[in-house]
Amino acid sequence: MAGSIYGKHFAISTWGESHGKGVGVVIDGCPAGLPLCEADIQEYLNRRKPGQSQFTTSRTEGDKAEILSGVFEGRTTGTPISILVANTSQRSQDYSEIASYYRPGHADYTFDMKYGFRDYRGGGRSSGRETIGRVAAGAVAAKILKELGITVCAYTRSIGPVEIDEKQFDMEEIQKNSFYMPDKEAAEKAGEYTGQCMEEKDSVGGVVECIVDGMPTGVGEPCFEKLDANLAKAVLSIGAVKGFEIGSGFAAAKARGKQNNDPFVNHGNGIEKESNHAGGTLGGISDGSRIVLRAAVKPTSSIAAQQHTVNQKGENIEISVKGRHDPVIVPRAVVVVEAMTALTIVDALMEGMSARMDFIEKIWGR
Amino acid sequence: MAGSIYGKHFAISTWGESHGKGVGVVIDGCPAGLPLCEADIQEYLNRRKPGQSQFTTSRTEGDKAEILSGVFEGRTTGTPISILVANTSQRSQDYSEIASYYRPGHADYTFDMKYGFRDYRGGGRSSGRETIGRVAAGAVAAKILKELGITVCAYTRSIGPVEIDEKQFDMEEIQKNSFYMPDKEAAEKAGEYTGQCMEEKDSVGGVVECIVDGMPTGVGEPCFEKLDANLAKAVLSIGAVKGFEIGSGFAAAKARGKQNNDPFVNHGNGIEKESNHAGGTLGGISDGSRIVLRAAVKPTSSIAAQQHTVNQKGENIEISVKGRHDPVIVPRAVVVVEAMTALTIVDALMEGMSARMDFIEKIWGR
Amino acid sequence: MAGSIYGKHFAISTWGESHGKGVGVVIDGCPAGLPLCEADIQEYLNRRKPGQSQFTTSRTEGDKAEILSGVFEGRTTGTPISILVANTSQRSQDYSEIASYYRPGHADYTFDMKYGFRDYRGGGRSSGRETIGRVAAGAVAAKILKELGITVCAYTRSIGPVEIDEKQFDMEEIQKNSFYMPDKEAAEKAGEYTGQCMEEKDSVGGVVECIVDGMPTGVGEPCFEKLDANLAKAVLSIGAVKGFEIGSGFAAAKARGKQNNDPFVNHGNGIEKESNHAGGTLGGISDGSRIVLRAAVKPTSSIAAQQHTVNQKGENIEISVKGRHDPVIVPRAVVVVEAMTALTIVDALMEGMSARMDFIEKIWGR
Amino acid sequence: MAGSIYGKHFAISTWGESHGKGVGVVIDGCPAGLPLCEADIQEYLNRRKPGQSQFTTSRTEGDKAEILSGVFEGRTTGTPISILVANTSQRSQDYSEIASYYRPGHADYTFDMKYGFRDYRGGGRSSGRETIGRVAAGAVAAKILKELGITVCAYTRSIGPVEIDEKQFDMEEIQKNSFYMPDKEAAEKAGEYTGQCMEEKDSVGGVVECIVDGMPTGVGEPCFEKLDANLAKAVLSIGAVKGFEIGSGFAAAKARGKQNNDPFVNHGNGIEKESNHAGGTLGGISDGSRIVLRAAVKPTSSIAAQQHTVNQKGENIEISVKGRHDPVIVPRAVVVVEAMTALTIVDALMEGMSARMDFIEKIWGR
Repeated sequence: MAGSIYGKHFAISTWGESHGKGVGVVIDGCPAGLPLCEADIQEYLNRRKPGQSQFTTSRTEGDKAEILSGVFEGRTTGTPISILVANTSQRSQDYSEIASYYRPGHADYTFDMKYGFRDYRGGGRSSGRETIGRVAAGAVAAKILKELGITVCAYTRSIGPVEIDEKQFDMEEIQKNSFYMPDKEAAEKAGEYTGQCMEEKDSVGGVVECIVDGMPTGVGEPCFEKLDANLAKAVLSIGAVKGFEIGSGFAAAKARGKQNNDPFVNHGNGIEKESNHAGGTLGGISDGSRIVLRAAVKPTSSIAAQQHTVNQKGENIEISVKGRHDPVIVPRAVVVVEAMTALTIVDALMEGMSARMDFIEKIWGR
Repeated sequence: MAGSIYGKHFAISTWGESHGKGVGVVIDGCPAGLPLCEADIQEYLNRRKPGQSQFTTSRTEGDKAEILSGVFEGRTTGTPISILVANTSQRSQDYSEIASYYRPGHADYTFDMKYGFRDYRGGGRSSGRETIGRVAAGAVAAKILKELGITVCAYTRSIGPVEIDEKQFDMEEIQKNSFYMPDKEAAEKAGEYTGQCMEEKDSVGGVVECIVDGMPTGVGEPCFEKLDANLAKAVLSIGAVKGFEIGSGFAAAKARGKQNNDPFVNHGNGIEKESNHAGGTLGGISDGSRIVLRAAVKPTSSIAAQQHTVNQKGENIEISVKGRHDPVIVPRAVVVVEAMTALTIVDALMEGMSARMDFIEKIWGR
Repeated sequence: MAGSIYGKHFAISTWGESHGKGVGVVIDGCPAGLPLCEADIQEYLNRRKPGQSQFTTSRTEGDKAEILSGVFEGRTTGTPISILVANTSQRSQDYSEIASYYRPGHADYTFDMKYGFRDYRGGGRSSGRETIGRVAAGAVAAKILKELGITVCAYTRSIGPVEIDEKQFDMEEIQKNSFYMPDKEAAEKAGEYTGQCMEEKDSVGGVVECIVDGMPTGVGEPCFEKLDANLAKAVLSIGAVKGFEIGSGFAAAKARGKQNNDPFVNHGNGIEKESNHAGGTLGGISDGSRIVLRAAVKPTSSIAAQQHTVNQKGENIEISVKGRHDPVIVPRAVVVVEAMTALTIVDALMEGMSARMDFIEKIWGR
Repeated sequence: MAGSIYGKHFAISTWGESHGKGVGVVIDGCPAGLPLCEADIQEYLNRRKPGQSQFTTSRTEGDKAEILSGVFEGRTTGTPISILVANTSQRSQDYSEIASYYRPGHADYTFDMKYGFRDYRGGGRSSGRETIGRVAAGAVAAKILKELGITVCAYTRSIGPVEIDEKQFDMEEIQKNSFYMPDKEAAEKAGEYTGQCMEEKDSVGGVVECIVDGMPTGVGEPCFEKLDANLAKAVLSIGAVKGFEIGSGFAAAKARGKQNNDPFVNHGNGIEKESNHAGGTLGGISDGSRIVLRAAVKPTSSIAAQQHTVNQKGENIEISVKGRHDPVIVPRAVVVVEAMTALTIVDALMEGMSARMDFIEKIWGR
């Protein structure tokens, strides 16, 4: 499929580059009757905004979401919702130099090879601003989920070697520190660590974790449209992500069956699981327990340190990447992981509605 | 999309359960002119076959592929290719007992919740036999890739704590031991370890690694149809897989930018990378270097040890899973990972053909 | 999309040619819980069978449907349903002659140009036997519709200049004559006319009409997935069909607004329309009234009369098409139009389930 | 699929209603390297503009296209192209009255039934302004085709009973009269006829014809993605269209085989057809000759004459539709038919690129 459309039912079409007139998204297939306003979207976009930490970009961006269609008298009409965010703070001259060479770890080289040329300004379509469309659409998806009693929450689990302590897990803490870590102490250590990186003109990666509560059972379509398969694709589609796991993930590869299986039990409230190594899905279908997934984010490729590379003429050169960039992008990825998770679940819920004759009869029967 | 169809251009539709008349796949969109015969497919299916090790199932299955359509005079016609594999060794009475309860770690519960009832025989659609269709189709995809000079090779990287030693990496060794490990010593240790598991009535997981060589640059469609995103979905769709990573994967989350970036260099043969932490893609597009991906496989859920669970009436019971099952399924997943990787790359190559005007003019221009 | 898959939710993948081992279809996305057996499918396939008239092919075909998967204890499981119909009556030697030239009106030429070569035997994939898969799947779709109180009925409206008289319309008559016309007198005249054609070594076309009753309102997705748009595609995909219309169709092009509009009225039973020039849809969405559509079928291209054409070497030659063929194929198209209509409506019903928040809450709400 | 996305490869996502902030389209999958500017799109949009005739709407609309992304230094980058057209001339108060009832022939009723409520202003999403996105995208598609030597041209073939005379066919005349008829005399007669309609407070329909020249052979994917099937869907998706035909269309239903077949012949320039009743496709694949298709457009539903209808409370009422509307919309549909045809052909060309191994090797081979 054309690459910038995500979803079959709740289908989003993102557009826009770092240095065009704006960025945005068109949401097609949003169900009618959902209360929606610009504030709902702005809340999510604000969580993308840099400037809340000494480690994030100094480029000020007042990304303001504008709904151009699809909402009438405060509710979605079922028609496409077009959301626009104008680009405000741009400096093209920053990038004329990098037009001529390929930055290591960036998509400059592959875009050039794929298309024959590229919009070199600020990363073009592969820049972080591409995530605005995803996040705006994710905000709408999250609203749908909320109406169904489903909540999606992402946070930073680790920055480099600094991990959260699950015993000190505090949901409230997430929005209080610039790393979006649910552990105040860990956030402080992360701050020290990233400060160190910056002095060394280096960058660091980390892991974003996302939990989903309130899932009904039965969501996901074997064999190829399994819920976890679609979550994996959604997460890997985020720039800088190099790995995905659900439940015990790679730890399961080292585990034993007795320990990794989640026994079923009934304490009088219906069937539950005693543990959740599965991470919320069995056979690719939601089992009603919490979905837990993780995204591995690589260290920011743009670093101030000198690097070796090649220019478009094929000459070996040394470069030092100027312009604005973050030494740690993990906190910026948090809301994107949350958005992609919400989008995937909404799409899966919609697909699953036609899985049974009694469901179909509930909607269309006489 | 309906869950049993994979791919947009090279679209495969798999069907069949453990205890139906057979299993198979219909391949739609296979290009015309590819030399193809049943032996090409059989070669791949044989790599699924158990019975080559003391640790795999004792149920003998002579899975024989039959091509019913789409091939004429030894070449594909461009019309759908239907491949059938009859089920031969079945014992329904094995499973009547498990019809009444939910096995931990299996999809019994979720299938029941999703559809309202389930075919309880041998795992039904969630059984390992479902992979036959994928592997048969993967064999055809691999043949296409071979014609283009692209090779896909999967193997077991680790079984529980036993890992291959990259310094002893030997491609030839893969087909010589029952674990499909490219390291003879590691295979022996794995044998000891799994023997231990079996005595303890337990099971163990592992990691499958897959490498792709000969990739052209430019394959993959930003933003949502990135090559690595589609590979993640393909791999996570395989039963028992709980994680995916590409390149340095989760290790990148702990790494630093200076170390993780792959500098470009030109030694006189065009642009290359000095290292490959990226694992073959940049910005979701192939960069011409080797693709390296990994799948985390959980320990087999069916274990002989006693487990606690719940039956369909909601009663708490103790069970011991009879019937045939493998304490380690990682070796069986190897050819499935290879097949899914081949399918994904073929589909991406096809999608990428229309990315540029000069490509389109090459095919349709005057 | 790969060309042999139809439908997004109720997705069918057809396969098989005239002279391969068999033909069939895999249905993915059939909802679980539908009672289904081979007889349901056989009933539809039998309506394809020739041999019921002096004007249809003398090749006897006992097309017997076999369900290979997806049904357990008499109900669909929600897993893919594979249906196989073995080819029994074949004579390859009939077609070796036509391997070398292009029959006028047939797809020989275009298949050759498209794929570089073709399976010349009996029309290969473009032969009438390709419709078996569609009809088998259509039978399953019709069963789903029946459970929802929706009926689909196709019949021959005209053969050449012979049209049914709407005042003599008799549903029961459809299955009683070989033309499937709901008007006994018209059927007799059609018989005389087609007899005349055969003597002249010629063929004739006709119009198939299909009506759908019991439609709920609200089915169809503006703007591009309108119900009538999808019906048009479904019908035009049938071989030999050159036109589609709904409601007054091409007559509307000559009509006036006052006459063509369907006024709404309420006789105490809710909103109805006083007339139905629209043919059951407004703005591409079903309005609850009867859907009426028509397919224009061209005269059979294979005629015994001598024709001029060109062979593969580019030489001008005269031919007379031997082998078996029908001078009128319209009656054979009837069940195919009915099947494609049923498939399209089922797919649209499924798509429409997620159009509103209250629908989604009905299925997934707490 | 979500209803406002058209195309698999060249995928367009339209948005916007009659009374929102604007309308537009996002094109995903446009190949890189195509020269493109706003003038290319404006040229097409201008052909939508009313005000060029006494019979079209008096509402002045200066629809100006703005490209927001996807173009760099005058060429498409391969990234999504977002086109915006702001709504300028709106008068909400026109429509408050119709909010309460269902206009005959319009989608008011079905939108209300489908979504539970509707944006009643000016027809909302079912209004003519929805076509702006299609036409803007069609302009880009037409540009791609032009680079490949393929031309698409639509015109009015008939208005009510007034038909063009093929012997007086003059391509140049199309842009010179307000009916877009390629026959000056017919255009004058049409003017008289529509003037008559207006006096009678009535409306009339017509037929739009579209021809495509320069098609390569081999475009279209049997069985369900046939080129003519997709053209039918594309055309039927246009509001007010009730029928589609290709080649001799419904006339073929009355024709005889000897007359309707197109014999092949070789006059020394390769294989050609002596006639073209097929309309450019055989077996759903282009045969290299001219594609000829027709769309039947119903008379405008909004007429000044009094009509009977029902309001939202279910009460029978009489209405007279105020506001602005055209007594004949056929001329406005011409550029839309042309746009949809161009979009469909571009998508089919892209799909067809992977049909053969030698095509794939041409792009990706070593």
